Formats: sequence, structure tokens, C-alpha cells
Amino acid sequence: MITLQDCQALDRADPLAPLRAQFDVPDGVIYLDGNSLGALPRATAERVQRTLRQEWGQDLIQSWNSAGWFAQPLATGDKIARLIGAGPNQVVAADTTSVNLYKALSAAIGLARAADPARRRIVSERSNFPTDLYIAEALCREHGMVLQLVHADELPQALDEQVAVLMLTHVHYRSGRMHDMAALNARAQALGILTVWDLAHSAGAVPVDLLGSGADFAVGCGYKYLNGGPGAPAFVWLHPRHHAQAWQPLAGWWGHARPFGFSPHYEPAPGIARFQCGTQPMLSLVALDAGVDTVLAAEALGGMAALRRKSLALTELFMQTAQDELAGHGVQIVTPQDPAARGSQVSLVVDADGYAVMQALIAHGVIGDYRAGDPEAPHPEDRLDLLRFGMTPLYLRHTDVWQAVQTLRQILDQGLWRDPRHARRHAVT
Amino acid sequence: MITLQDCQALDRADPLAPLRAQFDVPDGVIYLDGNSLGALPRATAERVQRTLRQEWGQDLIQSWNSAGWFAQPLATGDKIARLIGAGPNQVVAADTTSVNLYKALSAAIGLARAADPARRRIVSERSNFPTDLYIAEALCREHGMVLQLVHADELPQALDEQVAVLMLTHVHYRSGRMHDMAALNARAQALGILTVWDLAHSAGAVPVDLLGSGADFAVGCGYKYLNGGPGAPAFVWLHPRHHAQAWQPLAGWWGHARPFGFSPHYEPAPGIARFQCGTQPMLSLVALDAGVDTVLAAEALGGMAALRRKSLALTELFMQTAQDELAGHGVQIVTPQDPAARGSQVSLVVDADGYAVMQALIAHGVIGDYRAGDPEAPHPEDRLDLLRFGMTPLYLRHTDVWQAVQTLRQILDQGLWRDPRHARRHAVT
Repeated sequence: MITLQDCQALDRADPLAPLRAQFDVPDGVIYLDGNSLGALPRATAERVQRTLRQEWGQDLIQSWNSAGWFAQPLATGDKIARLIGAGPNQVVAADTTSVNLYKALSAAIGLARAADPARRRIVSERSNFPTDLYIAEALCREHGMVLQLVHADELPQALDEQVAVLMLTHVHYRSGRMHDMAALNARAQALGILTVWDLAHSAGAVPVDLLGSGADFAVGCGYKYLNGGPGAPAFVWLHPRHHAQAWQPLAGWWGHARPFGFSPHYEPAPGIARFQCGTQPMLSLVALDAGVDTVLAAEALGGMAALRRKSLALTELFMQTAQDELAGHGVQIVTPQDPAARGSQVSLVVDADGYAVMQALIAHGVIGDYRAGDPEAPHPEDRLDLLRFGMTPLYLRHTDVWQAVQTLRQILDQGLWRDPRHARRHAVT
Repeated sequence: MITLQDCQALDRADPLAPLRAQFDVPDGVIYLDGNSLGALPRATAERVQRTLRQEWGQDLIQSWNSAGWFAQPLATGDKIARLIGAGPNQVVAADTTSVNLYKALSAAIGLARAADPARRRIVSERSNFPTDLYIAEALCREHGMVLQLVHADELPQALDEQVAVLMLTHVHYRSGRMHDMAALNARAQALGILTVWDLAHSAGAVPVDLLGSGADFAVGCGYKYLNGGPGAPAFVWLHPRHHAQAWQPLAGWWGHARPFGFSPHYEPAPGIARFQCGTQPMLSLVALDAGVDTVLAAEALGGMAALRRKSLALTELFMQTAQDELAGHGVQIVTPQDPAARGSQVSLVVDADGYAVMQALIAHGVIGDYRAGDPEAPHPEDRLDLLRFGMTPLYLRHTDVWQAVQTLRQILDQGLWRDPRHARRHAVT
């Protein structure tokens, strides 16, 4: 059995421990939901206040130039690029993940069908995050295409030369399973299929090598492991080999070659700038920039590789402790044991009411989240009601993880989840 | 000649004068660029700090419910609705003007062509704000349609039964000319044409009656007269008669009938909620909400009608004083003298280098902006290099307007604009 003392020793030896001081995690809270909304960095309030009071309030319109507002989407994009194996001038931070996916998938469809108009299928996972499926469904409707939804295990059979685009979320939002991006890119490329990756649960959490793995397009989220704040702008990347040909229909003025030329006709900017559309929400964008800085702060301590080591240690610790401590509660760990197939979260099932268990955990200061299963899903894993625990190596300690499992044990052993205050009040929350 | 004393008397008699105290306009600045970026409201910093420190920092993920984040786009939309003649549950504040225009125009095209597939034209003004034209151009490309660009004077001839959509900006961003929305809606409706209005220079500046005038779709900007801050989210409206049929392809999870049902298939929400797409930037959205409040504060003092009276008085004062004081400098006022055709700005031409004149004005504390003409435009008005002065009745005084013209006179009379510091450094700024 792993003891609290073991975890205290691990914390003392943790080379990333100083990074926690970048955050204001509330007292008494063990925050295991950074995969949904990252915690508030200490530097963010001051950064937002400067943009608000000085740049907006005092310098007004001139801040578009003097404070670098115009360049901010590409400047923050350059920072994110360092976390996902992309180069400078390849990422733009703007809009939402859904909107960026619309851009990326539109461009991918255009390129794939220009090469071979007979390709009519987009392949994805049925249990992919729904907004990705909805956007793909909308584009299929617009382009007379078909969205084929399979389970991850069925991907190899689903890919053939009638497929235009393979669209996947790198780390699955429910299970925490991580795809082998390089292998899937290679398989897709051999078949002439373009890949679109959603890095929502990857950027800042696991190493990603977009250029090295030969990916075509990627999008990602600013408010999870990048700590950008609620609804922070998202990001979009495409491989530079596509820059000149990629067309995306959200062709607003920020993507124009000369946005202040005020020409009545659109001419896409060279490079990634053409994936911009309209004016970005600057208060939220500078908060994202400050959030990305908290991840970049790890660069001096080993960077994403060091974050990954700690993330794996934390998920491993959680899984091992859960198996040791929660015997008799029907614990089933859904997240892969294989580190190569695991993101930065642990998802599990217990034989109690998962919704009520999570409410009880939150009431006891351990914040994770609950994801109900899809009762109509053909694959049994997708029907599971999950407790989901995100492990953010920037601000979590081994002792936090250990304590979280102890709290879960207490709730299960003592049946605290049966308290009516924790019961589900709505069919869907 | 209108004197400073006259203007001081007007300020003393101004029933809206107390509204200025809502803003932190910098000392020594006369801010005539609120049509580009509204000034900072005093309440905004505190509102953003609360969202940042308490709702995000302390309450974390639960603020999506407890702080009303999920409902914020529709809540702020309901406030904006009161300023534009729309009803509750008809406006959503989200995304950018360009993205919202893509949604609205997509839906309008879909409805128009479902009724009559032979309608292949979208009509707009050649000198409309470019991003509107770019989005329309992109959608024409996607749908095999044609974008016909004319001058405002040519609109009556351009409208016929082959037109699907008439897309106009209500108040022109260059000239400040305001269209007769009701007359154009009536003309369009008689021909089976749907209308899409861009209210970027209208919302919070001039009375708009979307429902009463029979408009079909509208979008608008949050960071101009609504004082929402740099890049604040925009808004979108459609007439409730279109709610059930309107399809927009940015079909993300926030527009789903049950966003937390996590169904793999999209089902649009009833009503305006289907015009949402992804998660909104909450820091910028609450700043917009605080900005809209500064306009709603006029409701107790006569509302948009009172704001309009003051706005017209300020533009009239500027034009009259400019004509009186700037004799000999080739002043040509482009903004219509007819109040019914005038928005809340004054645009004019001088015989000096407009760019340098505006730089000199800014150096002397009078902030307006400069919009170069389009040398290739067929209509002479669109070729003019304009000095543009936005009149925000919430925080401008008659004395400010008078002083601005005196400063302009001084710059022209003394040739201060010839100072090399004010010369244009780039071909396009």
C-alpha cells in the first residue's frame, strides 16, 4: 500500500513542485478538473487588469498597435506551438474549438476532394466529443458527404481510399485513452487521407509532435490544460505544406492578406494568418496568453517531457491507490494501464451512483467530474457512467492524488453519496 | 458662430449628462472614436475581477451554473435586444461579427433558396465594411452564388426576384449614412428577398426597430457603441418567424437542443440558441455585459430616443461648427445633413493630408480616426480619404465637440499636420 508518507517524499523530490506557486488553487480544494477548466494562474489577474485599465482605458484605440493586440492571436499561437510540436507562424489562437474545427475540416475536405472528388467519407469515433461530431455532420450536409462513426478498435478497418478525412480527438475526453498519432497519420497518409486532430485534452498535458508525426490539421482548447480561463480562445494549426492551398470559408478580414487595405475582395493572407476571421476578445486572449506561460514555465525544468513524467506518475499513483483502497466497490478503471495509451486523466466506474459519488466528492473538497454514458452506444465502454479525474502536473501534488482517493474511499465505505443532497436533480446537468 | 459658452449651457441643460460618470475617459482626451472602440466603463474592471478571482479562481468549474456562465450569451443577448427593437430570447451575444454574419447569411441563403432555388444573387454595397463582403464572397463560393456590389444609390435597381439576400450595414462605417431599414425591408419583402442587417454602427447609437421594421436577420458588434471592450463578443438576431427553419452550419454543441445530453447527433435547439456554437470567452463576455449596462442606464432618462436626440445634437454641432470655423480648408462633410439619414458620426474631407491631420489631432488629445479611400471604387464618395469622428452621447459633452473642432482648426490654420512626426510611415496602417 502506498502511504501518505510515500507521497510526501515524492512531493519533496518533485522537480516540478515550484510550478504550483504559479496558481491560486483555493484552500481545502483538491482540483482534479483541470481537464475541464484549468485553475487560475496568479499572474492572470494583473495581466487582464493591465489590458483593461491601461491598454483599453487609457491608451484606447492605439493599443491595437502599441499593446500588440493585432498580433496577439499569432503571438499566443507561437507560444502554443512550442507545446505541440509546431513551428512559429503555424498556430493562431482565436475563436472557439468548434469554429476552428469548422475551418480546419472545411480546408481538409477541400484539399482531399480536390485531389480525389470520389472521397466522400469522414471517419471519426462515435464517442468523440459531440461538438466535433456536430461540426463534421454539418459539413457533411453542406458537402454531400457521409460521417462514419466507429469505435477506436474499428479504425483500422474503417480507413480506405474512399475516406477524405480522419478526424480524431488525440486524448479521449471520456476514457483518457490516447491515440498513436504518428501511426494513424502514417496509415492515413498511405491511403491519401488527411488527418484533423483535436488536441483539447493534449495541449499542455501530453507531448504532441504535430510536425514530426506528419499530421495535417489540428485544433485545440485554451481553457483546459492551458489554463486560459473560462471560454478562453481556442487554437488551430495546419501543416505548412498546406498553407498555400488551404481554403477556409470563415474568410473574415483578419485573414485577409492586407486587412487594413479595405479592399472589397478577399485575398487570403499567406500562411496561418488566413485561418483568422474576426476581431478577437482581447481580455480573454491575454488571459490565455498568461495561462500558456504557466506551461512554458516548465521549459526550464524539462518541459513537456518532465510534465509528462509527472503526469504519468500521478495517473499511475491514482490508479494504483484506487485499486488498493477501493476494493469491494466494483471499481473498474477505464483509462488504459499502458502509459503510451494514456492521457493525463483517470476515468473509472464504481458500483455506486456515479453522479452522487461525484457530488459527494465535490462537497468534500475533491473536484472531478461525472460523465454519464450513452445508453444507445453500441460499444460497452461508451455506455459507462464515468468518474473523471484530470491530473494537471503543474499544480497537483502526489499527496493531493493520494488524499483524493482516500476521500473517495471514505465516501464509498461510509455510503456518504446516499445523502439526498447529492442526488441527481435533473435528467441532464 | 457657436461659442464655448453656448456649449457649456447645452451641457448644463443636458438630461443625459449624468451618464458620463459611468466612464473613465482619460484626462485631456476628447474621445471621438467610440465607433471603433468604446471607452472603458467604470464598472467593468470590478465585474471582470469578480469573474476572474471569485467565479473562476475560487468557484472554478461550478461557476458554469452558479455564476450563470452558461446562460450569459442569452442573458447579454436579452439586454442587447432592448436596444435594437428585438424581443427576449431572440438575441445571442457570442463569437465575432464575421462569424455571426456567416451564420446569419448561411441561414438566409438556405431559406431563400428553399423557397426559390433560382435566386442566385446576394446584393450589398461595394463600400460595405470589407469583412461583410468577404464572408458573403466565401458563402457565394460555397453555394455557387454571385455577390453583386453596388452603390447605395443603385440599390433600388439592383433588387429583383433573382435576388436571394440583401445584406447591408445599417449605418455606413465610412460615411455615417443610415439606410431606411423599414423601407428597404418592405421593398425586399415585396420581392421575396431576405434582409441581413449589420448593426455594428447602430446598436447603442441609433434607434433600431428590427421587429417593427420587418427585418429578417441582424448581426452587430460589441466593442463599439456597446462599450464591451477590445474584441468583445458580437451578437446575432433573427426574426422569430425563422427560428424553426433557420439552419446555420456552425452547428456546435452550444446550439444543440440538449448540450449536456452528449448525443452523437446534432439536433438544433429551439429558438435563437441554435445560433450558438462553442464555449464563449467569459471574461470578455461579462465585460460586454457591463458595457451594455452603460447604454441601458439611459432607459431611466428617455432611452434610445433620448440618446438619439443628443447624438443628433452632437453631430449637428460638429458639422455646423466645422462649417463655421474651418473655412478655407476645403472642408467637405460627407455625412448626410438630413438627420433621418445620419448615424452617430461625422465624416469629412479636408484639403490637407488627412492621415497627418488625424495624427496631429491625436497628438493634441482629440482621438478620431482616418479611413483612406478606395482609389479603384467607381463611386467618387468611396474614393475619398476621410476623417471620421464618432459621437457617443453617453460620454461626450457639447463642449468636447466644440473643442475638437477648435483643435482641428488650429491644426489646419497653423499647418501643424506638416510636422514630420505625423507623416504616414506605412502604405497601409
